[in-house]
Amino acid sequence: MVMTASSANRLSVDALVFDAYGTLFDVHSVETTAESFFPGRGTDLSRVWRAKQLEYTWLQSLMQSASQGREDFAALTAHALDYACAALRLASTAQIRHRLLDAYLDLAPFPDALATLPGLAPLPRIILSNGTREMLEPLAAATGVAQHMDAIISVEAAGTYKPSPRVYQLAVDHLQLLPLRIGFVSSNAWDAIGAKAFGLTSIWVNRTGVPIDRHGPAPDAMIESLIELPALVREA
Amino acid sequence: MVMTASSANRLSVDALVFDAYGTLFDVHSVETTAESFFPGRGTDLSRVWRAKQLEYTWLQSLMQSASQGREDFAALTAHALDYACAALRLASTAQIRHRLLDAYLDLAPFPDALATLPGLAPLPRIILSNGTREMLEPLAAATGVAQHMDAIISVEAAGTYKPSPRVYQLAVDHLQLLPLRIGFVSSNAWDAIGAKAFGLTSIWVNRTGVPIDRHGPAPDAMIESLIELPALVREA
Repeated sequence: MVMTASSANRLSVDALVFDAYGTLFDVHSVETTAESFFPGRGTDLSRVWRAKQLEYTWLQSLMQSASQGREDFAALTAHALDYACAALRLASTAQIRHRLLDAYLDLAPFPDALATLPGLAPLPRIILSNGTREMLEPLAAATGVAQHMDAIISVEAAGTYKPSPRVYQLAVDHLQLLPLRIGFVSSNAWDAIGAKAFGLTSIWVNRTGVPIDRHGPAPDAMIESLIELPALVREA
Repeated sequence: MVMTASSANRLSVDALVFDAYGTLFDVHSVETTAESFFPGRGTDLSRVWRAKQLEYTWLQSLMQSASQGREDFAALTAHALDYACAALRLASTAQIRHRLLDAYLDLAPFPDALATLPGLAPLPRIILSNGTREMLEPLAAATGVAQHMDAIISVEAAGTYKPSPRVYQLAVDHLQLLPLRIGFVSSNAWDAIGAKAFGLTSIWVNRTGVPIDRHGPAPDAMIESLIELPALVREA
């Protein structure tokens, strides 16, 4: 699969939809808290925790028609932390677990997010995230991101996780626009690919210079930082 | 989630269903081929390749109601290899790619699989795998595994990948047994959990002593080697 578009193209959209975790908020900002409890292991813990968190959303979504229901993102985040501590043989306690889960509610926003969001008005901007409202709303408010968003939409209303097309449909229903007129912005390649497969105009924020995934259609554009976003969507 | 059963329990089943990749066949036996092309990187390549292969099956299954169809396991295995080479910055060629994909058709069986399968008769034994028939049948024949199996079932008939309940239903349809009377054997924890969520009697082969995943119900039993399987299912 070849990336067919680049930031040299201009994309014509009437609204922007942002992924939250990894895109606006740095999930690895929990490293500092993890490092304080497990010196020298904070990076590993953060990495395994995040990988399992995503894996559990995909697996539970696939298992979902089985007898038991889906758990919310807060529950899966806690399960993933428990797995990560066990896999890395870190002797966690109830108190440490509580503090680490709290750190996930207090993530740092990416500097390029805070620098870019104000200038995107008057384009409607919303968040579409795997997180629960209880996780997302306080985080967006505390970081100042909320004041630049017109709405925060949780996958809860779809009853499944990304990249199910039912999740991306939530943005269409909310914005009442054709999928192609909606710009979807995510730093998670699998999420940008899922949005493109659904039919949104998809923009992948590749901050770390990793290769694109190969299991679906390439996003419409790749940028290295959200700083590039206004020029990409403005001059359509 | 607590593992509620152990190998001390005996499980009463009327047939056994085996996962193939990672359970009967060692997916990391491609390391030798990988190492010959990329000295010092064979282990990394094998690890990233396998992780992406699984990730792509989950993601494509979830994206599936979108416009484009599902690709088969051979195609996803090739995509995952391409990603792994790009991510690890390995300069692959068409010929190396071809040889590595061929190696996946020539996996080594686990010694405990070959040692155990013959003694499980007369219990009906089948394979239920993400692989295509074109991948599975020659591999099972060449390794001698096929002669100990009554059938080889590919997920192709379900049109999706594990752990979708539609896949585990294929075993029920084939064996015409109640799910609880079917023993499902996998070394992939997520697969054993998916089978348990569906309702099969699930046995997790934990060869490497990793912790159990937390996103679904615990398998009915955990064993460290297939060698333990006959005693587990025999004396019910």
